[in-house]
Parts: sequence; structure tokens; C-alpha cells
Amino acid sequence: MNTPIQHLSGELDNGNELYIKRDDLLPFSMGGNKVRISQAFFQDMEHKGCDTMIIYGSRHSNLCRVLSNLCCSKDVPCVMICSHEEQEDQTATNNTHLIDWAGAQVIHCGKDNIAATVSSVMEKLRARGRRPYYIYGDKFGRGNEGTAAAAYAEAYREIQDFEADQGREFDYIFCPSGTGATQSGLICGHLLAGDGKKIMGIIISSRETERARQVISEGVSDYFVKNGRTLPTGWAEEIILLDGYRQAGYGHYDSRITSTIREQYRRNSLPLDPIYTGKAFWGMKEYINASGIRDSRILFLHTGGAPLFYDFLAKEGTENETC
Amino acid sequence: MNTPIQHLSGELDNGNELYIKRDDLLPFSMGGNKVRISQAFFQDMEHKGCDTMIIYGSRHSNLCRVLSNLCCSKDVPCVMICSHEEQEDQTATNNTHLIDWAGAQVIHCGKDNIAATVSSVMEKLRARGRRPYYIYGDKFGRGNEGTAAAAYAEAYREIQDFEADQGREFDYIFCPSGTGATQSGLICGHLLAGDGKKIMGIIISSRETERARQVISEGVSDYFVKNGRTLPTGWAEEIILLDGYRQAGYGHYDSRITSTIREQYRRNSLPLDPIYTGKAFWGMKEYINASGIRDSRILFLHTGGAPLFYDFLAKEGTENETC
Repeated sequence: MNTPIQHLSGELDNGNELYIKRDDLLPFSMGGNKVRISQAFFQDMEHKGCDTMIIYGSRHSNLCRVLSNLCCSKDVPCVMICSHEEQEDQTATNNTHLIDWAGAQVIHCGKDNIAATVSSVMEKLRARGRRPYYIYGDKFGRGNEGTAAAAYAEAYREIQDFEADQGREFDYIFCPSGTGATQSGLICGHLLAGDGKKIMGIIISSRETERARQVISEGVSDYFVKNGRTLPTGWAEEIILLDGYRQAGYGHYDSRITSTIREQYRRNSLPLDPIYTGKAFWGMKEYINASGIRDSRILFLHTGGAPLFYDFLAKEGTENETC
Repeated sequence: MNTPIQHLSGELDNGNELYIKRDDLLPFSMGGNKVRISQAFFQDMEHKGCDTMIIYGSRHSNLCRVLSNLCCSKDVPCVMICSHEEQEDQTATNNTHLIDWAGAQVIHCGKDNIAATVSSVMEKLRARGRRPYYIYGDKFGRGNEGTAAAAYAEAYREIQDFEADQGREFDYIFCPSGTGATQSGLICGHLLAGDGKKIMGIIISSRETERARQVISEGVSDYFVKNGRTLPTGWAEEIILLDGYRQAGYGHYDSRITSTIREQYRRNSLPLDPIYTGKAFWGMKEYINASGIRDSRILFLHTGGAPLFYDFLAKEGTENETC
């Protein structure tokens, strides 16, 4: 599962050096952080002796794409509770198509009806002799926070191995902060290592910042409890969230982000998308310039979402065609 | 540059075991065999003291996508001679968009006018004090066959390293055979290793089989000449081309191939495309079943083309949507 860490030379000023961990290249289901997170959920399902996966998300979800693919590749039945928002763009995306290919059984529900739908799906499956596993825990989506966090608590060791090879640590790790699972995991890794790194989450969602902090806090605590570890004093200060870069909220972006995406394709051949990685990469660079960080070694975690890069490419690509 | 080799369990009958080398995960410009080949061309350009890259291909070309990206990432001017065929589908593809993003200077020309266009572009650049490099050699596209072959002659060592780790060799390597550069390189690696493997090219193009054989032969000879090596007696028998799987020719495919693509996504989370890798994967399985190969260890080289997978997904994906 070890993904490359590449040096992006000349990207930053003031003596700062930028590296990128290419989790977009994880070799399953088009890559991305959700590959590690899905595998953590899947192992947890097996560990708990369950035989049917219940997933939840929108038809554009990276997590639902990977989990539905993991289930069909292992012949495990998968039920997707598919949420709809009234304002949502109804255009099918690459993830929509791939979720269809994976053939999960789809149950539609409104945002105000999730708990009841989860309950009802679980009951029906149990009545048919199945042992269903809901990725988020109970019907309110609580109780399983630490499972998702485990993925990046473990991936953190790959970063430490790279540092050991290079003989120098990173000062900062930046990542997009959406559901919070990836950042929770990195913070767990950092706390367990007891190192001096700062884990910087760029909020890309519409989630209120204090709510984002609470969710990450729950992920970290649950991981520590489940692994029988004690959290160090003052650990909550390690949750660093930058909320000045979400623009108009989840899924909204302007030309500063589209320029960043084109520029990073041209300079470093990176596929960034406007919803997660492109927004976070742009936000990271803005923050580093504004905050006066100097002479630091900085890692950006590329959390993938290649299908979203291609959604963007198809949408924007037709401008100014010369070829 | 080492890419993963994965075991695909249960894919083949008769005691055969299938492995796949994931060159679609090469960490530059969306991956694929053209990443290795482009890097070989780029190094050759630098070695020859040239400063401007001339590339040739259609607006859908994987090679032109990677080369134009490599040039812009290294600030080397790139001129693309862009061929058109009258019957060609005029729809822009992901590669079309990415070639645009890279910003190569595009010169259009018909298929009957390539040599004159190459000459004219080279002369104009020289008159401006540039030292242009045409990837295919002279204006007729000859003289540089061994450069492209070098890419997979070198990649062959990664396969040998894997075999050494596992303590057992592969009996067969299957790959799509289009321009022939990849297969030429694998044959060079095999001849240099003096091992017992068979390199099986599945012809996916419309190119006549004897012409395909000749082009591969030129690649192998040129590589050996340029590296001061002597070809072993009878080496031409190592060029194995399977031409029963091209269907109606380059770019044409039927439901056997689209089913293979969906099945391989579901079972092994692989992105295969209908023009190259999906057709070759299907052809390989058909051939193995028909030829009575037994108890063999078989490697499929995934030559990438992720942008083509997403072209296909967008085209086919909207059927039977449930999500």
C-alpha cells in the first residue's frame, strides 16, 4: 500500500520545500484516501462477523464508489443508502457510473430520514438471516469514528519511514478536511509518534468549523479508546483547521482553483479536482504565503478522487481547444 | 518507477495463474506505458543536445498527452504535428483536453503530408536558432526505433526483480500491440535476459500483421545496434503477434469487450479501456482458453490509458443507472 512521496521543486518561496504523498495512486478502485478508509471498514466488518455492508452517501461519493467496488470484488452484498439534497446537481458523475457498475442495491432517502432508513434496512436484512454492518455505527451514524481514523493512523507510518530514509522530518502535513476521517487518522499517528509535526486541515466542506473540530475529536478519541491507548494532555490543540479557503462552500470554486488545477497539471502532472484536492492545494499555498512560514519541510497529502478530476476535465476541457 | 505487480486470483482455468503489472499507476501524467516511452524520448533529446521537442500524433494520442506534459513541466518548447483522418470521430476526448492544457504549439496536417510538415517545422525552428528533435527520427519517421524500445527493455528488469523475489519466472507476458514500441522493448529485455518467456502481443490496431512484425523487428534491431549488442540467432521468432482479436480494427469493439471491462472493474477494480487494454485483456483470455495453455504463470502488462477509461465510462456509464 506504500504510495510515492514526490518532491515538487520550486513550488514554494521563503526556503520552504514541498512534497506530495500520492495516495491518488493507491492501486484499488481509482485510488484515493477512501481506499484506505474502505479497507479499514471492510476489515472491521469481517472482524465483527458481519456479512452485508450498508453504506451511506450521495451518488457522487468517492467513499461509496470504493466501498461498493470492494464489496463486489469480494462477493459481499452491499446496500447503499443514497441521500439526496434538493439543491443537488442532478448530473451523473464518474462516481455515479462506477457505483452503478459495482451493482450495490440502492435505497434512496432524504437527508431528514437517514436514521429511520438505516434502521429499516438493518431490520429487513436481519429478518432474512443476514448480519448487516453499517459503516458509521448506530442508526444515527455514531460509534464507529475510530475505525475510519485507523486508516491514516496506519498510513502515518509510511510518512515516518520516508522521513527516516531522508534523515529529516516534515514540519507540516496539509490535507483536505471534509468528513474529518483522514485528518483524525493523521492526528492519531502524530500523537502516537509524539513528533513535532503540525497536521493542517483545509476545510473544503460547508461544515461549521466547530462541528468539524468536534467530529475530528470524536474520531481521535474513539481510535485511542479502541486501541487501549491514553490520549496525551492538551491533545485537542493538535486539531488545526483552516477555514478561510472553503470559498462559497462544498463544491463551490472560482478561477483561483481552476487555475491552480491547470498549473499543477502543467508543472507537476498532478490530477487535482476542484472540490477536494485542488481547493486544499490552493488553500495550502495561500496560507503558507500569508502566515510567513519559512524554511520548512511541508507534505501535501493527495487524497485522490481521480474520477472528479475527469469530471472537471470534461466540463472545463472544451474551452480554447487548439488540437 | 517500479509499478506494482498484482495477483488476480481465480481469473484463469487449467492451473494458470494471472498477474498484472500496473503501469497505469506510473506517477506522471495519468500513467501508462507512454510515460516510460516519453521519458526515453526526452532523455534522448537531451543527450543529443536538442532544445525543442517535435511530436506527432492524433488529438486522442496517449503519447502526445504525456510528451506535451513532460515538455511543459520542464519548460521545453513542444510542437505537435497533429494528424487528421477523414473518418475520424471529431468528438474531443480527455487526451484532447489534456494536450490543450499542456499548451503545445499545434500544427495540423493530413496523413499524406506528414514528411513535408516535419521538414518544414524543423527548418523553421532551425532558422530561429532552435535545435529541434523529432521523436521518430528523420522526416519519414525512421531512425529512432530503438529509443522507444529502450523504455521497456529497461522496465523488463522490474519484472525480473519480481520473479527473483518470488523464486519463479513468468512463462508468458501479454501486452496490447499497437505501435509496437512496448512489445519491442519487452522482446529486447527477454533476449538480453536469455530467459524462456514468451512475449505475446495482442494486435489491437488496424495495422497489417506483417507490417506490425516488421516495425517490431526494426525496434529490436535498432536497440541492439545502438547498445552495441549482438542479436542471437533466430531472434525474429520471438516476435509473437496474435491478430485474431482486433475485431473490426483500431477503435472498434463489441459487447465482449465492454463486458470484460465492467467485469474487471467489478472483480479486480481495474480501469481497462476498449481500445487498448480491454481489448488485449479479452484477447489474452480468449487465446489462453483456445490454445490449451496449462499450469502457466502469466503476466498481463496494463499499459494504462486512464483518460480512455474515463472516456468510455462517460459514454457507457449512463446506461441502467440506479443510483
